[in-house]
Amino acid sequence: MTDFCPIPEVGKHGAFLEKVVELLFKNVVFTTRQDKVLLWQTPEELEEQFDFSLSQNGESQEKLISLLKNTIKFSVKTGHPYFVNQLFSGLDPYGLAGQWLTDALNASVYTYEVAPVFTLMETHVIKEVCRMIGPQWGDGLFCPGGSFGNGTAISLARYHRYPDVKKKGTNHLPRLVVFASEECHYSIFKFSAFLGIGEGNVVLVSTDEVGQLIPSDLEGKLDQQIAEGAVPIIVVATLGTTVRGAFDPINEIADICKRRDKHRAKLNGIERADSIVVNPHKLLAVPQQCSMLLVRSEGILHDCFSKGAEYLFQKDKHYDRSYDLGDKYLQCGRKCDVFKFWLMWKAKGSSGFASHIDTLMDSAEYFEQQANNRPDFMMVSRRQYMNVCFWYLPRYLRGKTNILEHGSQLGKVAPQIRAVMIRHGSVMLAYQPLKQLPNFFRFVSQNSSLTRKDIDFILDHISEIGDALFK
Amino acid sequence: MTDFCPIPEVGKHGAFLEKVVELLFKNVVFTTRQDKVLLWQTPEELEEQFDFSLSQNGESQEKLISLLKNTIKFSVKTGHPYFVNQLFSGLDPYGLAGQWLTDALNASVYTYEVAPVFTLMETHVIKEVCRMIGPQWGDGLFCPGGSFGNGTAISLARYHRYPDVKKKGTNHLPRLVVFASEECHYSIFKFSAFLGIGEGNVVLVSTDEVGQLIPSDLEGKLDQQIAEGAVPIIVVATLGTTVRGAFDPINEIADICKRRDKHRAKLNGIERADSIVVNPHKLLAVPQQCSMLLVRSEGILHDCFSKGAEYLFQKDKHYDRSYDLGDKYLQCGRKCDVFKFWLMWKAKGSSGFASHIDTLMDSAEYFEQQANNRPDFMMVSRRQYMNVCFWYLPRYLRGKTNILEHGSQLGKVAPQIRAVMIRHGSVMLAYQPLKQLPNFFRFVSQNSSLTRKDIDFILDHISEIGDALFK
Repeated sequence: MTDFCPIPEVGKHGAFLEKVVELLFKNVVFTTRQDKVLLWQTPEELEEQFDFSLSQNGESQEKLISLLKNTIKFSVKTGHPYFVNQLFSGLDPYGLAGQWLTDALNASVYTYEVAPVFTLMETHVIKEVCRMIGPQWGDGLFCPGGSFGNGTAISLARYHRYPDVKKKGTNHLPRLVVFASEECHYSIFKFSAFLGIGEGNVVLVSTDEVGQLIPSDLEGKLDQQIAEGAVPIIVVATLGTTVRGAFDPINEIADICKRRDKHRAKLNGIERADSIVVNPHKLLAVPQQCSMLLVRSEGILHDCFSKGAEYLFQKDKHYDRSYDLGDKYLQCGRKCDVFKFWLMWKAKGSSGFASHIDTLMDSAEYFEQQANNRPDFMMVSRRQYMNVCFWYLPRYLRGKTNILEHGSQLGKVAPQIRAVMIRHGSVMLAYQPLKQLPNFFRFVSQNSSLTRKDIDFILDHISEIGDALFK
Repeated sequence: MTDFCPIPEVGKHGAFLEKVVELLFKNVVFTTRQDKVLLWQTPEELEEQFDFSLSQNGESQEKLISLLKNTIKFSVKTGHPYFVNQLFSGLDPYGLAGQWLTDALNASVYTYEVAPVFTLMETHVIKEVCRMIGPQWGDGLFCPGGSFGNGTAISLARYHRYPDVKKKGTNHLPRLVVFASEECHYSIFKFSAFLGIGEGNVVLVSTDEVGQLIPSDLEGKLDQQIAEGAVPIIVVATLGTTVRGAFDPINEIADICKRRDKHRAKLNGIERADSIVVNPHKLLAVPQQCSMLLVRSEGILHDCFSKGAEYLFQKDKHYDRSYDLGDKYLQCGRKCDVFKFWLMWKAKGSSGFASHIDTLMDSAEYFEQQANNRPDFMMVSRRQYMNVCFWYLPRYLRGKTNILEHGSQLGKVAPQIRAVMIRHGSVMLAYQPLKQLPNFFRFVSQNSSLTRKDIDFILDHISEIGDALFK
């Protein structure tokens, strides 16, 4: 037996794995507010302080443990309540337990025989989520991220309109166009390019002052594209946009699509969509990665993506081949993403997820109220979801009637405050510009242990840094 | 604080997580040969025995632990030495440690600031692998599986030939064709369809008696397609095909492509390829998922896939934005797949991976020799790699001069033997037909703790079952 040894030996590897688990419990899983969110190092500094090198010979277990300690030391604690930088945060103990078990079993979910429990579990969870959407729903996939889910949905829309695209490609087709709001996620562009549709054929529909797609603009642009000979294949609606958390009006969008007898794209009216991408690894705090693509039509995934590889999906199996999920996926080998989600659901029930969302909505409301009560904060647009988008106003910008006239000054504020917070390692809070709006902060938390006291601290912290920077 | 609680509390959640780890150590990580590979249940039986249901209220920790026990009980032990069913197997303790730490930190690798260690680590590992290929290499991505890597490589080849495809799509282009051998992986079809090229535009090149692409057939088919007005964009070569482990002759393929001034597609001559997909989660036993796409040209990933979303890749960051890897990926949020691979490499060194491969090659050679010495086994074609492809011959088929004349009888043997092994839970060994060849077994192990005694056991086991089934 070589030193490589993929069957861990209890003696040699057991002690190592136990030390690793102890380290994770002590320094990652059970973080407290007293810990820093991150220990900022520039890329150049980190290159000097961390031994990334790989060599001919292996390292001792002691050295490895010290490397693990350094990895933790220099990594961002995304489970910390003051990590409000992305649309994911929090570390759920049941999600983590599910993930660790998934890793230890190291299954690949393509055929029933190789992953029996996870195969049936995917079917159950997809059915349950479909049931929540509407009676005619449908089927679904677990995807390596929401971007991939969006791309897959666009490809299904194209296949639905032109089923021979699977075999013949798009070469003989007219120009296809994809519609989405100008505040849509950038994956719509990336995957339209990847699919051969082209970024230039993503038609952006204008949004209103809170970030919602404007139906009349969609209608006008649909007519214009059709008049130019293009074929619209999908209208992408977003329920909770990335930056502002805006909800596109699905019912109105569906009505417009219906009137044109074209494809209908997408929590009011969601059942009218033909495909939906939902990311439990975001709002629901399921560990990375856990994204789902759901489709109304039960057979379309298999019809569009199947290939029937005989080394996996043999025709003479000793059980019903319809239990093998693999052929409705674009991937072959595929990590099991369902178990951690299922375990969290089982542990908390639907009501646990609901109260998680209630808590987060309360936090967002509290954040907004408190910020509105302070002279140094200003809302960017009306809050519709958990995203609170706001500017910090230096003293010399307070009380101005039209703040956008001072856009170039205002746009410099958030990056500077953020840089100080990151160097302190105190809070990670995202900022970005949007359309004509200069850089602003976006507060969104998926961590339901964030308290009102935490929110007060974050607001005070921004004020203090702002006061010190902009006298 | 609600019961959802994404910050684990030491008291309540600590004890639960400790129990989970204990369970994993006892029942998954340190499996022995005495354990079954699987406890076979039909889908219908498993539905009855496992509580998959999700409901409004959560379950107690005791109930959850019993569900975890059942998950383990009914799941396949892919780390068991007698799991030789797929091109992945074995459970590496360092890989597992790396995965567990990755899960606990729950990073998403798009920007340096959110995943500083993992960002630099990806850059180091990709550079090191590129260095092993050749001096002009290049850049790379970690992908959610090799299929996705293959698809991404095809899309890069198309972009390289027609850079305006990113913006304008493929609508204005001639018919594009993809070349691959008739024993290539099925993802070439799936992703050609997904990309809008069409399955029908995958041109299959014939293979010889051991499964290698025949260069003269490639040459003829290239000429024919070009004469018909199609534009070849990529020739896919496989080093170690899925079923037979055949190596396509890259140097000859590269010469043919070069003579036509077209794109060059792929261990002898590998440096002449333009893109390479490699799956450390297969041969190197890195836990799922860990796939890499490598490209020769440093800028092409960014050029082809970037979109510059401003909420992630702000132009006014307080550090050099070129450290943010996210915009060269098709995905947005992305699980960290590098750390477990890096940790294994650090733990074993390159020499550890090399001796792992040596051990596996020795095992394959031993398996082949032993099978050749037995009258009831027959090789399908000459072994070129770790894949040993063989038929078990029932007594009435032994000594026949042309076994393929008895193809319909022979094809029924492997599925029946396999069904018995799976019901016993003793060994998982794959079978499939290939071209005109009836169902045969494929032995490939990625588990270097598989001994000669284990191989003798597997061969004896097949013989015993065969003897009993086919009198």
